[in-house]
Amino acid sequence: MTAAKGSRASAQTSTRAPVTAVTQAHAHPAPTVRVALLGCGNVGAALAEILLTRSDDVAARTGIRLELVGIAVANADRPRPPAIRADLVGTDAAGLVARDDVDVVVEVIGGLHPAHELVEAALRNGKPVVTANKALLATAGAELAQVAADAGVDLLYEAAVAGAIPVIRPLRESLAGEQIVRVMGIVNGTTNFILTRMEERGDSYDAVLREAQELGLAERDPTADVEGHDAAAKAAILASLAFGSDVVDADVHREGISTLGAADVAYANRLGYSVKLLAIAELLDGGPEISVRVHPAMVPRTHPLASVRGAFNAVFVEGAVSGELMLYGRGAGGGPTASAMLGDLVDAARNLLAGAPAPAPKRTSTTVREQSAMRSAFYLSMDVADRPGVLAAVAKIFGDHDVSIRAMEQVGLAEEARLIFLTHVAREGDLLATIDELRRHKAVDRVSGVLRVIGDGTEGDEAP
Amino acid sequence: MTAAKGSRASAQTSTRAPVTAVTQAHAHPAPTVRVALLGCGNVGAALAEILLTRSDDVAARTGIRLELVGIAVANADRPRPPAIRADLVGTDAAGLVARDDVDVVVEVIGGLHPAHELVEAALRNGKPVVTANKALLATAGAELAQVAADAGVDLLYEAAVAGAIPVIRPLRESLAGEQIVRVMGIVNGTTNFILTRMEERGDSYDAVLREAQELGLAERDPTADVEGHDAAAKAAILASLAFGSDVVDADVHREGISTLGAADVAYANRLGYSVKLLAIAELLDGGPEISVRVHPAMVPRTHPLASVRGAFNAVFVEGAVSGELMLYGRGAGGGPTASAMLGDLVDAARNLLAGAPAPAPKRTSTTVREQSAMRSAFYLSMDVADRPGVLAAVAKIFGDHDVSIRAMEQVGLAEEARLIFLTHVAREGDLLATIDELRRHKAVDRVSGVLRVIGDGTEGDEAP
Repeated sequence: MTAAKGSRASAQTSTRAPVTAVTQAHAHPAPTVRVALLGCGNVGAALAEILLTRSDDVAARTGIRLELVGIAVANADRPRPPAIRADLVGTDAAGLVARDDVDVVVEVIGGLHPAHELVEAALRNGKPVVTANKALLATAGAELAQVAADAGVDLLYEAAVAGAIPVIRPLRESLAGEQIVRVMGIVNGTTNFILTRMEERGDSYDAVLREAQELGLAERDPTADVEGHDAAAKAAILASLAFGSDVVDADVHREGISTLGAADVAYANRLGYSVKLLAIAELLDGGPEISVRVHPAMVPRTHPLASVRGAFNAVFVEGAVSGELMLYGRGAGGGPTASAMLGDLVDAARNLLAGAPAPAPKRTSTTVREQSAMRSAFYLSMDVADRPGVLAAVAKIFGDHDVSIRAMEQVGLAEEARLIFLTHVAREGDLLATIDELRRHKAVDRVSGVLRVIGDGTEGDEAP
Repeated sequence: MTAAKGSRASAQTSTRAPVTAVTQAHAHPAPTVRVALLGCGNVGAALAEILLTRSDDVAARTGIRLELVGIAVANADRPRPPAIRADLVGTDAAGLVARDDVDVVVEVIGGLHPAHELVEAALRNGKPVVTANKALLATAGAELAQVAADAGVDLLYEAAVAGAIPVIRPLRESLAGEQIVRVMGIVNGTTNFILTRMEERGDSYDAVLREAQELGLAERDPTADVEGHDAAAKAAILASLAFGSDVVDADVHREGISTLGAADVAYANRLGYSVKLLAIAELLDGGPEISVRVHPAMVPRTHPLASVRGAFNAVFVEGAVSGELMLYGRGAGGGPTASAMLGDLVDAARNLLAGAPAPAPKRTSTTVREQSAMRSAFYLSMDVADRPGVLAAVAKIFGDHDVSIRAMEQVGLAEEARLIFLTHVAREGDLLATIDELRRHKAVDRVSGVLRVIGDGTEGDEAP
């Protein structure tokens, strides 16, 4: 087909051995694309088995034959499923990436090194890469995307955010047609499970965390999930893709859910909200400023994100043309992850054959707005000494910092009382200063739940 | 690139003029694919303008240059936007489809004829087709998909169901990896708007329909929407895609929303359900029997479909591997529709260049189970004379037909009373026989609201 002649991919692949010739005997001869697999843990082994045992089926359905030609592992002697032939397995990952008979590379090693070097070497060599390496993408995603764009090949990572849910592809494709304005995701199943249980049963955070750990839904050390680190990495990936930004996980403002009380969740619920840990990336005033943050938020019960319960994930996208779009489903699991990576692999192979990589965001120069300059309505709860004059003192502190109170309620009795405040839209910096001063006040024991109110159209606006 | 040599598309396109050679002057030379447009109404004109004025932009973002080489219309003299040059416009659609310098065909004529003949001619000639023609796909979709598969080219129709929401592609792609078990969609914005307003405000069906008509959300003759015809066509398309079935719209069991009362919606709400008009396609007992139907249903408020409000659409997909997936967004609008079709066009062009069409369902031989053999829990409301013995007589009719009552409530006073029943899971045939006999009973004036209860895991099961 003359169309591909002189196209990007053909120029780059011309120094490599040609892709295996097509068998003409089949009614629908499928071109073959040769795959190298880096890493062979749960997801890697699942993907290897699909490629080794169901290649005919994949070829029949997709028109492309994927041939697994090599697997690089740290320890070649570890026992593996019988379908994974020993002659495919070796320990020289760099050598495998460089082999002439490798067309596409799948990276499932995880972590930063040597994954970074291997992915970069593959891309520079004109080989598309499929990965689900969240940590790598959240620190070096923009840089690697640029290497891929320069080489004219794909860097695909559908499985890196929200597992089996097709999130990355619609974001990537909508870029061809329109400006994304905001992305809000429930991208961590552990925290969503905890918040859902707290809402449904009124249980404490600690009790539900223990339950989640017993069910295998939370790690023994739950920090990465409950303090929002996992969600922050995904927020960075989503922001980079949606806005072409060079955002890394360290740029993401991050708050977790470990200080939330059952009373906070119940109160939000009573007002018609569900509490969700959101990863948010948004373009401010048309850009180039953006905001990228992870924090618990009160989401109106009528908002589609409020219906995302248990360990499910969802990503809500607002675009200038298509309006609101939400993609919902299971966020994790070996099978779904391998299945999402197989989809990427088929795409990468098809795009390689076409000589046209998947649409990539134009890299743009964005800056992340300081969280203190953002505006939002807030929910705030605090434990105070229950004596005359305390409420007046507390209310004065809000007023002194230009934070206007929309509603207040006292819950609890005895010597300790919990005060719950709902503010009008306020500047975050002012609210943080309010909290600082509250914490220093002798009648205030503890400021615990701090929630932003989302979905009423006011959040994120600098203008009042 | 030798990979494409001998591949499907190259074999078929070899008798046509080669795709325009790539300009090497660009940093990233993009292969050109030449497009013919059949029809130039709202969506067609929007798409033509994009192709004529933003081709550089699309090429920069996607790596493929789309060149619009001809537009076929019924009346060449009708005024059109200035970007649409007169020399592109003609009336010979069949001649345009057959032209050697046309690589891909976009059909936006609508209706069955001549759209059917033109789409078929293009596919037989090895030219991929992009269409949003719901009526054509719902009557001849399986046949045309077979023609496309035989020719080894794409028939893409992302915009035919749920407008700008990426529904078709994930369904199509997930086919490469797994078995779809059930698809449930809110695919008609007009009826969802009406049901949402009835729920929010307690207004009658007639009042809300008038409001929808005033807002331009319902046609003067609303039959196609409110009686479920539009949703039935989409159900047929979804079933064909999900199960590889040869289902046409006439096979779809169909009930509308025009007999629902405000009391029915309010009662469902009180029980924790939202009323939604659902298009459902499901595989029964692993197949080959399927069920394809459109009817109003009670959806638990915790189910993601219950959060789909107003004119929004959503499609909920249950797969064997990926579990539950929901895709949510705006279902209609000229811009979103053209944007979805542009996405298809880029895909079709990329797949043509790769010589590998998008994954297509294996056609399978399914049969549609009679609705009367399906099982479900039911909600039922009826107006009866308010006198002693009526409830006993009514309850006996349920029992005589093996339909077990789970809850009953009487609303309304005076001489007329409304009785509301909630049944345990029952065979539809038994319930229909119950309704028949109720309608013949002298104390029953009217059986109005009939709703199936969805999302409790019992629906669709033949086994008790």
